[in-house]
Amino acid sequence: MDDNRALNRLLDERAIERLLFDYAYFLDMNMPDKMAALFVDDCEVSYAPNFGAEGIDEYKKTLDGIGTFFVATTHHVSNVCIDFDGDDEARVRAVVLAIHRYTRERPDGFLYGQYDDVVVKTDGHWRFRKRVLKTTMTTDYHVKAAHPIGRLE
Amino acid sequence: MDDNRALNRLLDERAIERLLFDYAYFLDMNMPDKMAALFVDDCEVSYAPNFGAEGIDEYKKTLDGIGTFFVATTHHVSNVCIDFDGDDEARVRAVVLAIHRYTRERPDGFLYGQYDDVVVKTDGHWRFRKRVLKTTMTTDYHVKAAHPIGRLE
Amino acid sequence: MDDNRALNRLLDERAIERLLFDYAYFLDMNMPDKMAALFVDDCEVSYAPNFGAEGIDEYKKTLDGIGTFFVATTHHVSNVCIDFDGDDEARVRAVVLAIHRYTRERPDGFLYGQYDDVVVKTDGHWRFRKRVLKTTMTTDYHVKAAHPIGRLE
Repeated sequence: MDDNRALNRLLDERAIERLLFDYAYFLDMNMPDKMAALFVDDCEVSYAPNFGAEGIDEYKKTLDGIGTFFVATTHHVSNVCIDFDGDDEARVRAVVLAIHRYTRERPDGFLYGQYDDVVVKTDGHWRFRKRVLKTTMTTDYHVKAAHPIGRLE
Repeated sequence: MDDNRALNRLLDERAIERLLFDYAYFLDMNMPDKMAALFVDDCEVSYAPNFGAEGIDEYKKTLDGIGTFFVATTHHVSNVCIDFDGDDEARVRAVVLAIHRYTRERPDGFLYGQYDDVVVKTDGHWRFRKRVLKTTMTTDYHVKAAHPIGRLE
Repeated sequence: MDDNRALNRLLDERAIERLLFDYAYFLDMNMPDKMAALFVDDCEVSYAPNFGAEGIDEYKKTLDGIGTFFVATTHHVSNVCIDFDGDDEARVRAVVLAIHRYTRERPDGFLYGQYDDVVVKTDGHWRFRKRVLKTTMTTDYHVKAAHPIGRLE
């Protein structure tokens, strides 16, 4: 890989990390329109079996009104690992700690998970083409269905 | 942006991340003098309404003796987002999970927040000019006043 | 530092971060063989006094069967700080939040710690030569011995 290409890879990695962090920020700020803008039109999103969306219109519907369910949420994203498939596509895996304080009277819900993403660069911007949330473990969390991380026995 | 400038931006971003991580490290190691050295003389710091400092001398006073209040603290900083305003100044937003084990007999205090910083480069070093802690939510935390993150209703 | 060297440092830093994140991933996925491959043959590992290994064979033995102890674990690594000692060696310090859900009936074990690593580049790959886990604090954690972080009184 020559220097110019290596430099561009590093810039792309920063932009991809920023994409993941912006998603978390807009989620915690209850800004669903800004979240949706981080996805391409033909996106696929799956938070759990039977809980997701195909295409941006369906995705926007899943976001509709979610903010009222929570008083606050906080999403801590780390361990971001990026593997490129060409210059304009990459697979991304990251770890998330998400805590949910509910509007209803109930204990905070803790989700410990992994994001498994495909991101693509179009018009110079990186966005999510596919986002799958895998669940490592939960405590008092309101979603009971989950994609497993595939931990070996 | 030409290659040389892009490279310098990447180096600056690493240095800015390091600034945030060193702050957390010196805080958890109870090294207030090293913390203070991360701020410029005319710094502004606000951890909550009526809990902060203007200028390095006032800031040092807020740090005085804080270590005795805790047996241990641990600050986990992630989601670091950097926006440059010129070559020597940047706005930084990050997420923090901070857990406090008190000297007094009481449950651990959990703070989930956002840092909202302005950092500047002087003499080749990045330091904090402004640091504001916004509070997403807390559990058993000793500070009751808080700057809100501004989550939309 | 000229541009080419600076670029290589940035690429090395990404590779070193990835090493730390892969370790966490393989641990949470219960893939001890893949963990061991991240260490050089003459590695030194210490998780606590009298709990560690010298050399890869001893290290593999410490990993043997650990997966059966847990239903799930999740390792959140952040605050990664890298200091180079030449082009092929670096000291790394990072913060870890690790939660352990046990096979036995007992509360989840929380470990808040610091990794203190020496990493080396051989054959173009960064691997651990030394890994020491320091313990900031724990809650309901099964390991009682610990290396202190050295917090000042």
